Amino acid sequence: MKIAKSLQQIQPSYIREILAAAQTQGVISLAGGLPDGESFPLDLMEDSLNTLAASPQLFQYGHTAGYAPLLDYFKQTEQQPGHHSAIVCTGSQQALDLIARAFLNPNDIVVMEAPSYLGALQVFGLAQANVQSIQQRADGPDLAQLEAKFATGEVVMFYAVPDFHNPTGVCWSLEVRQKVAQLCIQYNVTLIEDVPYRELRFNGQALPLTSSFCPDNSLVLRSFSKIATPGIRLGLLTGKTDWINPLIKVKQSSDLHSSVPMQAVLLDLLKHPNFDKHLAKLRDLYQKRYLALTEQLSQKLPAGCQFNTVDGGMFIWLTVPDCNTYQLAQAAIDNNVAVVPSAVFYQQGETVEPALRLNFTNASESELATAVDRLVTAINESCKPI
Amino acid sequence: MKIAKSLQQIQPSYIREILAAAQTQGVISLAGGLPDGESFPLDLMEDSLNTLAASPQLFQYGHTAGYAPLLDYFKQTEQQPGHHSAIVCTGSQQALDLIARAFLNPNDIVVMEAPSYLGALQVFGLAQANVQSIQQRADGPDLAQLEAKFATGEVVMFYAVPDFHNPTGVCWSLEVRQKVAQLCIQYNVTLIEDVPYRELRFNGQALPLTSSFCPDNSLVLRSFSKIATPGIRLGLLTGKTDWINPLIKVKQSSDLHSSVPMQAVLLDLLKHPNFDKHLAKLRDLYQKRYLALTEQLSQKLPAGCQFNTVDGGMFIWLTVPDCNTYQLAQAAIDNNVAVVPSAVFYQQGETVEPALRLNFTNASESELATAVDRLVTAINESCKPI
Repeated sequence: MKIAKSLQQIQPSYIREILAAAQTQGVISLAGGLPDGESFPLDLMEDSLNTLAASPQLFQYGHTAGYAPLLDYFKQTEQQPGHHSAIVCTGSQQALDLIARAFLNPNDIVVMEAPSYLGALQVFGLAQANVQSIQQRADGPDLAQLEAKFATGEVVMFYAVPDFHNPTGVCWSLEVRQKVAQLCIQYNVTLIEDVPYRELRFNGQALPLTSSFCPDNSLVLRSFSKIATPGIRLGLLTGKTDWINPLIKVKQSSDLHSSVPMQAVLLDLLKHPNFDKHLAKLRDLYQKRYLALTEQLSQKLPAGCQFNTVDGGMFIWLTVPDCNTYQLAQAAIDNNVAVVPSAVFYQQGETVEPALRLNFTNASESELATAVDRLVTAINESCKPI
Repeated sequence: MKIAKSLQQIQPSYIREILAAAQTQGVISLAGGLPDGESFPLDLMEDSLNTLAASPQLFQYGHTAGYAPLLDYFKQTEQQPGHHSAIVCTGSQQALDLIARAFLNPNDIVVMEAPSYLGALQVFGLAQANVQSIQQRADGPDLAQLEAKFATGEVVMFYAVPDFHNPTGVCWSLEVRQKVAQLCIQYNVTLIEDVPYRELRFNGQALPLTSSFCPDNSLVLRSFSKIATPGIRLGLLTGKTDWINPLIKVKQSSDLHSSVPMQAVLLDLLKHPNFDKHLAKLRDLYQKRYLALTEQLSQKLPAGCQFNTVDGGMFIWLTVPDCNTYQLAQAAIDNNVAVVPSAVFYQQGETVEPALRLNFTNASESELATAVDRLVTAINESCKPI
């Protein structure tokens, strides 16, 4: 059999490949978007896990939209409007895939900021969408470019990660959120608001969801990989019921439903009286690591390198002197530190800013210090200062 | 947003809708393909579930192809050839969906027996395949029709459920298996062999997998929903590594990977010294229920009704006098017994044999007796004898 045309131009995830290399003994990884494994709230999940075997009803086939008590919980906590509903997905990655399959025809236009989340590029590529990029500024998308795209009348959806963007860590300002929402309403574009890092804010006040300013023009993707654990593969997708229903149809074909025992354990975790404490502890840990990484970088980076400050999330974006970032990332791996080259976050043919994505949530402070030493060596070897 | 063209002709699963009605108090359901919840091997899974909280590594992001120790186990037990490999899926439903997405272009020809598994019709519909049906005989597909289709040179894949077919319960003979394999090799057609019910044989000897006669022309889908539990959503897909690799790429986009804690629990269950005893007990229970159902039917069915005998699986196929089977199923629901009308297992425009699919694994023997009384009343009300 030949592989389908839609798959032929899709590259396997470089990140998932580099993660394999990053697991080699002695390599410190700043490559993945991995939360800290030692901080998983397993102590809060233990009672729930230990009672699963006494709950056979959780092991039977379940409803496609999700485990009913979990959906009820979200209905209350998210204060969904009456004409909105939710679907539990096998990770928010599935949520994005379902959206593309339910609402995109080949060549439909999807707008994204560049650089952008690789998993989204893959999903929209598989849907054979026409992905068009606009530049990202320090406070969000370039609004003039965005409006110019929207004004063509041909844009179906705008995919965005407004809270601590992957890969740059950028957080949209309030003004940008309001303006994007207004543009989505004005030009009838659907905002796909992906917020996996939203709860990982360790500095400043949370800003309203962009979709809160255009609720009927939005679908919102929440992930439990960063605040609970990734291995359970659970995410949540909310929006107008008219849009959730077709997504349920696609999910029936995709996997019938997501793991019910894992949904029950997630519900118990979210309702646990100490869950907020867990989140506070996690934010504190990630802030310490962020500060440790940036302090090291400030001290040791050669001329021509710059990184942005962030108020949360898992990543910073380190621009480097003009060089082949794939070769730089390989030199880093050879020097026992794994990072992700900027090129993977752009579509083919786009202008690539020479940069690296650095994760600060999965390595200890002392590992981060060592990692910076190794990275600086690799940069000095591979990049000529401007 | 408008829903995608590929989704517009897909009907939501009637079965999943009828399952909701079947959960009404007082209704006995012979509608779903539900295993017996009281027989879930939770006693064998309990130790494993209770140690999850002590295994944080199971809660981190995992490999897309599956949990490595589980893949190793399958490699040994399934005796995969060196150039074959496996991918763990979020239920075998996902396996089928991945195959369609990785290998089908719109209008590609897929052959199936009619009637056929509704979830496969949905998947191939979403892939915009050209599904062509051939008739099913008592020992498998009509081989002359199959060869005539294959001989066109345009068939990409043949989807089949050779062991205790859903919905008819038919099990292919050895001769049919060998002939189908030979035809797949001769005409270079890929056999998609879906075997969720294979381990549920309660009479006679197991026959070789059809794919064992054409291993390099096959992909095999195994489900753990019937022998472990459905709620954990795990299945396995095996075949040539050249074909598994594109499937891994699609799975990256679809959900990154399946739940790792559930994969670890499944591995422990499969390796449990008492797992074979569990299977033997399950087969014994289902045989008793099958015999109870068919005995009741033999005694009470009106003229013009017939059912087939089966050697395993979960279903029998009850042909009824010519009538609108949707109305008959509704009359049955009104009479507090849920069944599935034959029409849902055919594509639009096909000749539908007037029949009902009856499940015998989810109701007790006394419930089955009551269900037959109610069903007979509904048949007498809704169908005129021939």
